[in-house]
Amino acid sequence: MRKLLALFILFFLLSGNITRAQKGDSLVIRKIFTEAITDTAAYHNLRYLCTQIGGRLCGSPQAEKAVLWSKATLVAMGLDSVWLQEVRVRHWERGKTEELAVSQGTSPAIRLHACALGGSVGTGKAGLKAKVVEVKDFDELKTIGRKNIEGKIVFFNHPPDPVHYNTFEAYGALSRYRVFGADNAAYYGAIGVIVRSATLSHDDFPHTGIMHYADTVPKIPAMAVSANDADKLDRLLKSKSGSDVLMKLSCIENPEAVSYNVIGEIRGAVSPEKIIAFGGHLDSWDTGQGAHDDGAGVVQSMEVLRIFRALNMKPACTIRAVLFMDEEMSQRGAKKYGEYARAQEEAFKNSRVAVDSMAGEVKPQLAGSHHVAAIEADRGGFTPSGFSIDASDGQISKIQGWKDLLLPYGLYSLVKGGSGVDIRELKSLGTALLALVPDSQRYFDCHHSANDMFGNVNMRELQLGSFAMAAMVYLIDINGL
Amino acid sequence: MRKLLALFILFFLLSGNITRAQKGDSLVIRKIFTEAITDTAAYHNLRYLCTQIGGRLCGSPQAEKAVLWSKATLVAMGLDSVWLQEVRVRHWERGKTEELAVSQGTSPAIRLHACALGGSVGTGKAGLKAKVVEVKDFDELKTIGRKNIEGKIVFFNHPPDPVHYNTFEAYGALSRYRVFGADNAAYYGAIGVIVRSATLSHDDFPHTGIMHYADTVPKIPAMAVSANDADKLDRLLKSKSGSDVLMKLSCIENPEAVSYNVIGEIRGAVSPEKIIAFGGHLDSWDTGQGAHDDGAGVVQSMEVLRIFRALNMKPACTIRAVLFMDEEMSQRGAKKYGEYARAQEEAFKNSRVAVDSMAGEVKPQLAGSHHVAAIEADRGGFTPSGFSIDASDGQISKIQGWKDLLLPYGLYSLVKGGSGVDIRELKSLGTALLALVPDSQRYFDCHHSANDMFGNVNMRELQLGSFAMAAMVYLIDINGL
Repeated sequence: MRKLLALFILFFLLSGNITRAQKGDSLVIRKIFTEAITDTAAYHNLRYLCTQIGGRLCGSPQAEKAVLWSKATLVAMGLDSVWLQEVRVRHWERGKTEELAVSQGTSPAIRLHACALGGSVGTGKAGLKAKVVEVKDFDELKTIGRKNIEGKIVFFNHPPDPVHYNTFEAYGALSRYRVFGADNAAYYGAIGVIVRSATLSHDDFPHTGIMHYADTVPKIPAMAVSANDADKLDRLLKSKSGSDVLMKLSCIENPEAVSYNVIGEIRGAVSPEKIIAFGGHLDSWDTGQGAHDDGAGVVQSMEVLRIFRALNMKPACTIRAVLFMDEEMSQRGAKKYGEYARAQEEAFKNSRVAVDSMAGEVKPQLAGSHHVAAIEADRGGFTPSGFSIDASDGQISKIQGWKDLLLPYGLYSLVKGGSGVDIRELKSLGTALLALVPDSQRYFDCHHSANDMFGNVNMRELQLGSFAMAAMVYLIDINGL
Repeated sequence: MRKLLALFILFFLLSGNITRAQKGDSLVIRKIFTEAITDTAAYHNLRYLCTQIGGRLCGSPQAEKAVLWSKATLVAMGLDSVWLQEVRVRHWERGKTEELAVSQGTSPAIRLHACALGGSVGTGKAGLKAKVVEVKDFDELKTIGRKNIEGKIVFFNHPPDPVHYNTFEAYGALSRYRVFGADNAAYYGAIGVIVRSATLSHDDFPHTGIMHYADTVPKIPAMAVSANDADKLDRLLKSKSGSDVLMKLSCIENPEAVSYNVIGEIRGAVSPEKIIAFGGHLDSWDTGQGAHDDGAGVVQSMEVLRIFRALNMKPACTIRAVLFMDEEMSQRGAKKYGEYARAQEEAFKNSRVAVDSMAGEVKPQLAGSHHVAAIEADRGGFTPSGFSIDASDGQISKIQGWKDLLLPYGLYSLVKGGSGVDIRELKSLGTALLALVPDSQRYFDCHHSANDMFGNVNMRELQLGSFAMAAMVYLIDINGL
């Protein structure tokens, strides 16, 4: 009975300590919130990135400008270290000609809102003129078969399924036609492919995005048509037989270019070898300004460092913003950073073994570094609801233990789930991976289209995302993982 | 010990039942979600209300059109009952002239983005030309005093405080200058008043809204200036002495007009005398289209009834949409509905006493009605996060018990708090009052301005609000309160 009593007392003492620690944390988090929601630096950075640099496809002059600008902006913050990490990237260009038109008999051709998919080959100057076969999915393509497809253009008209709260689930089902539509159509002898835009909205914006070519089938030109014009094309194809479609694309695949990840950090005051990384991607599609995808993630990551500096917070671990190059095409930046992190991890392990085996009390600094956690911000600059966490159950539980600190700021959701493609290379290092999760309802209205503009980002929503990341970085730094 | 065991068993049995009941509820709620997020009726209704009718100040021809259109739309749904409730309303008009300009010496006058506050008197054709006294708040006004204010125009330039997660808190602090600025300035002898727009955004839209005149001081003309131009006016006033401001307003106060609350309901299959009401307000400011404020709440309330009909759900209680007239000016519609509900409640109580005292088993139908709950939707058509609940602790606990059913749809917040001005009259009847709470970050970018347009409403966000209300109505109906 006495033991039980002692245990009870211990429990209450411990829970008292937790409460006191959390009270201290809640004050710091309030300060971080105040700084994030008051200062307009991130919003003005986004304005510059979007309106003065604009869409920044990897390998393009705009991507180069974005590298120089973000490096200079990080340097101006007075960080402990800012550096570039060289990455070789594809340098695909859309070209000037993008035309998709339907003609029926002698009527004038009807021009549709369409654009090249990222990585598509061109059509040659004359373009492709052919009959169109409309299908809903890969099963229907298979059923129709080569005899009905050969020499024609395939139109994947897969409608969005609105019945998911999280719009990324609907997007997943749609984007497969964009990515693998050309391969699948070419396999049955198609000469071109048109894909309904991967969006839940009903408008005139065509949405681009990466597509894949297999080595085993011919590379055929591929375009996205807007949701409204996918419906129109469907009606035209059904209303009369004998519709011809003209596709014209002047895409160019240039030689690979040299580009960079941009990295800035505040060195840890206690354990500089432990890294808490966070980032978004610098490159974007060229159809819009890359505001939500992923200008938002870039400026929010920079803002985390600015907030720590502004509040004179000295993190125990090194906190590091990584602005990845080439998320949209081939994730070369992510791979490069992954290689670097693995080499650092290896050096860290060896150094730790060596240092631990040394006699005496004064041990030298550990070499290399270990990534404790990485946070990716690449789901748009909308009001955040929390984080999706790809980590051990113990780490997830620990993060969930901070929920009362985050709930006053609308961050209610701390759940197990995927993170993002730019940080997944760190998974094998035992790094806890997190994704900032904003409200997803409007993301695919903008995503990869001319609608992804600075004017569609709300300052407060953007600031709340910076806050959420900075608060999470603080909590991981102070509590460990 | 046996008693304890029996209690334990009972507890587990009961909790088992709750789980089974909740599983059934979760399936129904999934159906409600699917219907709400798939059907586009609410969005198209909002399109009509905003683009074909437009801004609809109470007493205006547009408000009249909105009454007729919403009634016809409810009738077309095949409800059990649709009726109008007559309300006498103010009929104020902005007039054609709205001018605010600053002149310094012989330089050309600088025109500012400004509009009349709702209910303001006009200036007469010549307008008012006077020096301006800028103050931050009522304290500063008092300090400056009559000798510096008499014969001048007072400019309340109270900046928004961004440091609240919920933007309604910042709005509360700002709107007092709009509502009581004229009274306070006139008390010290001012001849006109200019108020910085009650918004957190930095743009050129002036935001109108109701203002108050006391009987004890002269009625002076009152305008709102956009946030950007409030900053500009501040700079102009500080940069040189001798700035004159010209205010011109041609507002008209017409005789009171007859208008209506519009009510539609599905009669309860079990307890028709028990009412679950929900609504928004039909009137809006005239500067924009009244899309978020409160076209959204109107079409969402209508949509709750459509969803019940479409799913062939027969509620036990009567479920009723109330589209209130005149929320913006004087809440005459709310008062009228409150009177009606109180009379019904009185009849219900008397009838219940009479019926309960009768002998025999077959008792006649109860007269009158009792409002179990009322939900107000008047905070914009943005992604909802839950409900604010003004009810007894027991009722709040019961509603919070449904949180696991609502969380998959982002409805994480079921907290004690205020509801809304259109339903507060029901408070004295013991009715549980709820407000639908959407994300507040963008609301005051639109609120009461020319920016409150249909194009600024996202279809899915709107649909999620309809869903949230329909799910809450279902849960209250099936579980009681």
